[in-house]
Amino acid sequence: MAKPVTVSFVDPATNLTTKEVRVVPDGSLTLLQVAQSAGLEIAATCGGRGRCRSCRVKVLQGEIPPATMQDRVQLGGEEIQERYRLSCQTCLIASCSILPAPPLTEGGHQILAAPNTRLDRGALALDSGVEKHVIVAAPPTEENHQTSDLEQIVAQLPRRVAIEATPIGVLRDLPETLRAKGGQLTVTTFLDRILDIEPGDSSAHKFGVAFDIGTTTIVASLLDLDSGEELASVANMNPQSVYGGDLMSRIAYAMNDPKKLATLRAKALNAVNDFIKEACDKAGVSTQHVYKIVVVGNTCMHHVFLGIDVSYVGLAPYAPVVRHPVVIAASELPLKATPKAVVCLLPLVAGFVGADTVACVLATRIYESKELRALVDIGTNGEVVMGNRDRLMACSAPAGPALEGAQIRHGMRGALGAIEKVRIDGDVECDVIGNVPAIGICGSGLIDAVARMLDVNVLAASGVMRHDFKDSVAQSLRERMTKTAEGRDQFVLVRKEESGKGEAVALTQSDIRQLQLAKGAIYSGILMLQKVIGVSDAELAELMLCGGFGNYISIASAVRIRLLPPLPLERITYFGNAAHVGAQMALLSETERARASELARRIEHVALASQPDFQDVFVDAISFSAPLSVAS
Amino acid sequence: MAKPVTVSFVDPATNLTTKEVRVVPDGSLTLLQVAQSAGLEIAATCGGRGRCRSCRVKVLQGEIPPATMQDRVQLGGEEIQERYRLSCQTCLIASCSILPAPPLTEGGHQILAAPNTRLDRGALALDSGVEKHVIVAAPPTEENHQTSDLEQIVAQLPRRVAIEATPIGVLRDLPETLRAKGGQLTVTTFLDRILDIEPGDSSAHKFGVAFDIGTTTIVASLLDLDSGEELASVANMNPQSVYGGDLMSRIAYAMNDPKKLATLRAKALNAVNDFIKEACDKAGVSTQHVYKIVVVGNTCMHHVFLGIDVSYVGLAPYAPVVRHPVVIAASELPLKATPKAVVCLLPLVAGFVGADTVACVLATRIYESKELRALVDIGTNGEVVMGNRDRLMACSAPAGPALEGAQIRHGMRGALGAIEKVRIDGDVECDVIGNVPAIGICGSGLIDAVARMLDVNVLAASGVMRHDFKDSVAQSLRERMTKTAEGRDQFVLVRKEESGKGEAVALTQSDIRQLQLAKGAIYSGILMLQKVIGVSDAELAELMLCGGFGNYISIASAVRIRLLPPLPLERITYFGNAAHVGAQMALLSETERARASELARRIEHVALASQPDFQDVFVDAISFSAPLSVAS
Repeated sequence: MAKPVTVSFVDPATNLTTKEVRVVPDGSLTLLQVAQSAGLEIAATCGGRGRCRSCRVKVLQGEIPPATMQDRVQLGGEEIQERYRLSCQTCLIASCSILPAPPLTEGGHQILAAPNTRLDRGALALDSGVEKHVIVAAPPTEENHQTSDLEQIVAQLPRRVAIEATPIGVLRDLPETLRAKGGQLTVTTFLDRILDIEPGDSSAHKFGVAFDIGTTTIVASLLDLDSGEELASVANMNPQSVYGGDLMSRIAYAMNDPKKLATLRAKALNAVNDFIKEACDKAGVSTQHVYKIVVVGNTCMHHVFLGIDVSYVGLAPYAPVVRHPVVIAASELPLKATPKAVVCLLPLVAGFVGADTVACVLATRIYESKELRALVDIGTNGEVVMGNRDRLMACSAPAGPALEGAQIRHGMRGALGAIEKVRIDGDVECDVIGNVPAIGICGSGLIDAVARMLDVNVLAASGVMRHDFKDSVAQSLRERMTKTAEGRDQFVLVRKEESGKGEAVALTQSDIRQLQLAKGAIYSGILMLQKVIGVSDAELAELMLCGGFGNYISIASAVRIRLLPPLPLERITYFGNAAHVGAQMALLSETERARASELARRIEHVALASQPDFQDVFVDAISFSAPLSVAS
Repeated sequence: MAKPVTVSFVDPATNLTTKEVRVVPDGSLTLLQVAQSAGLEIAATCGGRGRCRSCRVKVLQGEIPPATMQDRVQLGGEEIQERYRLSCQTCLIASCSILPAPPLTEGGHQILAAPNTRLDRGALALDSGVEKHVIVAAPPTEENHQTSDLEQIVAQLPRRVAIEATPIGVLRDLPETLRAKGGQLTVTTFLDRILDIEPGDSSAHKFGVAFDIGTTTIVASLLDLDSGEELASVANMNPQSVYGGDLMSRIAYAMNDPKKLATLRAKALNAVNDFIKEACDKAGVSTQHVYKIVVVGNTCMHHVFLGIDVSYVGLAPYAPVVRHPVVIAASELPLKATPKAVVCLLPLVAGFVGADTVACVLATRIYESKELRALVDIGTNGEVVMGNRDRLMACSAPAGPALEGAQIRHGMRGALGAIEKVRIDGDVECDVIGNVPAIGICGSGLIDAVARMLDVNVLAASGVMRHDFKDSVAQSLRERMTKTAEGRDQFVLVRKEESGKGEAVALTQSDIRQLQLAKGAIYSGILMLQKVIGVSDAELAELMLCGGFGNYISIASAVRIRLLPPLPLERITYFGNAAHVGAQMALLSETERARASELARRIEHVALASQPDFQDVFVDAISFSAPLSVAS
């Protein structure tokens, strides 16, 4: 039997050992698993499948395990030499001291959220369903004794309430409440249910929070339910990210393991609690006066938030466990910050067309358009909705995280040091977030770079790097066409001496292939819906980019690389974070929340993989050049 | 400042010190409070007001505190001499060693419950509202992908269900459940709500529990919801009793102190949990298959069970906080034994006319009688209901615990050694529970004894003991007319040498007064309703004795002492534990449960104290002899 060994973890910030664990190596136990079991959160964006670099660690002391194939692909020879390894791929063999690599997302990370949220409050009926009634109720008396405290209160309400639905928590303190301020009470109702009964007049305090729980980020807005005004907003990383950056990784982590599901759920609940507290702090209001919370998110986020087993959401046919609009007491989840609130989750359409997509449809009002329109949410799991007031179709487009910088050798999120724009005018010019030397490239930079590489013939329409045809490339660019340490073709965007990381920032042939798969997934979703509905590019009145990511890309570059169809550029618009806007609409208006339920029933889901001509469409969509005829 | 002292508690069974606490005497801290804070449960039937003997302790070592007036009244000189004290009245003055007196209720206690429960199943529609549906459901497929696990299941159900009301706990495991046994599932519904979804066929297992949570005892029956058959029953003391034997004491304990209320609530919830487990164990069924629980109890028990503040239930006008029929998920209480079950509490009429009375009305079917009938629940808090199919009136009669043996010098519950029947035929003859030497007298014995004492002129109709007129009493009885150590008149039922406690078992003048107040309360309730409705004794077709206690008394004796009106004896009947029968009816039949709600609205509550002629009626009712004209 193997003997136990000691693994020490060193804090990158202080260089001190922060954790030491003794474990028995069994030949399959990875460094990532050891770290996670010790409570250390090493990011594993790809879910521990060796497909990204986020979980890399440096083995400071101890026998260094041999490099794996994934180490070679993701890290390259240099880093391997420097004792870096992917912790998800490296099995523990002996006692060692481990330095987790500092997460790339630290410092100046742009949360792709708040800007440009086109919530048109003017067009919205402010009917949140939450009402406050200030009444004066008398306790039962000798003369009026065949009654109860609750009945005395309900008799004074101007609206009918379902007395039997009064939460037990409200009843428990009722006698004191009724007698505290001479019988002056504020009764808060949601539709026909009592949510809270407070002594005195608190009618000025009626708040709600709209949540968009994304795979990567969580965005929340605290709204005044009377005025519709936004009092505060909070946006941050989804703390579940360390257990997998994309959906499938997250599902794989929790699959068939109730404990891990509980871990993810606790992360989500804690985050939501913290966001509510932070937003209320910012606005200077009490969390006790938050009465309605609307949550949108994809099926996985939705289910995990409720603690529902997601094992089968990750297996074909990717069916959700429930789709109906769940309305649940915050105390039942539990959300401790707002025990009196009601939590409304918008409904789902299908496994990969979740409540976030329904919220996008709500926000863009595509459902009332006479002309055919489309909305595209570009993300790890992209979604496309197309249609008009007569018919709406939706599909999911599993792009993977390449467009967010993952699985790209020098890819990173849109954070400090990321190349976000690329021009080639004679030589290559890059805009870097924060105006610092570049350390990597984010999604919008990647799209720009590839568009320009196509323009200058560095890249063929098929996606092949033209190293064999350097002659067709301008002289000034030829020296940027180099090889990686492993001998693969690459194109250098920022030279080693100008970069902020001690090596060149370049795109490799493999990066281009990753991008092609990702953009091909999105574009084939658009093409397939065009085919099913029978709408040509010319007939598409508008294509709206939803989701934070869409805000940052160059539309011209996106069209150039065939991530988006070749529409006149003015017909492609930025909508901003439509899912979050939709959540806010459902928060402020029960009319809109009811509409969301109706839309979820109305939207027809197209399962791409089961469409007979999907393979052909996908192959077409991967290419950077259009075939002779596009529309069917 | 006072110094801390040590209080040791000795276990009566082993004579060993089981607990030692150090406390600072503050001049008002009682021995009972010290014991309770140390987690020792000394019974305090009167709620610590010095009105009973249940909390008495013997001070084995240490300075003995001076006897109080209450010590003298309740214990008498002899016990005071022997270092007995009422722990609720005795303030801690110095370090001491304390022997709690063994509770009188131990050994052979008759739970006044199960016998004679006339649940007429034949007349009952078996419509518990709980249904089991065995279905086969297919998980979503590639072809049928725009659906969800839950929708696939609901589509197979033969009845409509409110899909939005599906408990989150059921959803969490649904994917596994659906795929476990080839899609064979048992879906359990209550009305239009899903309670549980299990793999396989569990249709044969559908159970419910009916609870009567009395102030003194808790009775539970496990019923098969399909056949109505009783599978097991459990009856035991209400563990809250140690915090006060009667309602007002229990309320006083919890008043304005959420922690103490929480203690009482935990006692009730634990007891209910334990009862369910015990009943299921007895019957060999799983607690997971208990789906419906019906609870009846008076307002205080009802509120405490739900954790509702009872502070104002104990103050005039004694209004309940809620009266409506509460239906709550067991998981919300929480009842851990049966998380899937729904708990239905029957509604209340008024503060002292609770769900138990509603259940009695349901069980006796007085509401469908053409003739005027009455039902009387004799207890610490007695209730009287009178009426017919046209009109029903109810009042509460606060008899106090004297009829249960409390506040009577040698009183005790109906336990081993209690005199339960008394005959005087020349000399006094007593029947003792268990045929052992008598150690005290219980309620039924008390009523018998007083009736016989009236017969033989030991007692005048006014309630005065005729020590001054011994000549009018038979020679054989005169020597039983003696004095207590304090010089008060008493009548000896069992002489010292024949008793089991080393002293005579006797009734004192003060005992007679206590009984008069108690029986006067009940009878004045009956008389007042007769007055309000305008019904003479002759017009009263039947008087039904409900409640466990009623089963044990001699009807002739009860009429003799004017606890009950002078009806022909055949018109006074025993019903048994009607509240528990009513709970079972509501458990087996939603028709009956709906009827209970309708009855609670229909019953008119008469507040005795606010009736103008109540004082006159009460004075009349206290007397042992009738005035010349009874009916108005």
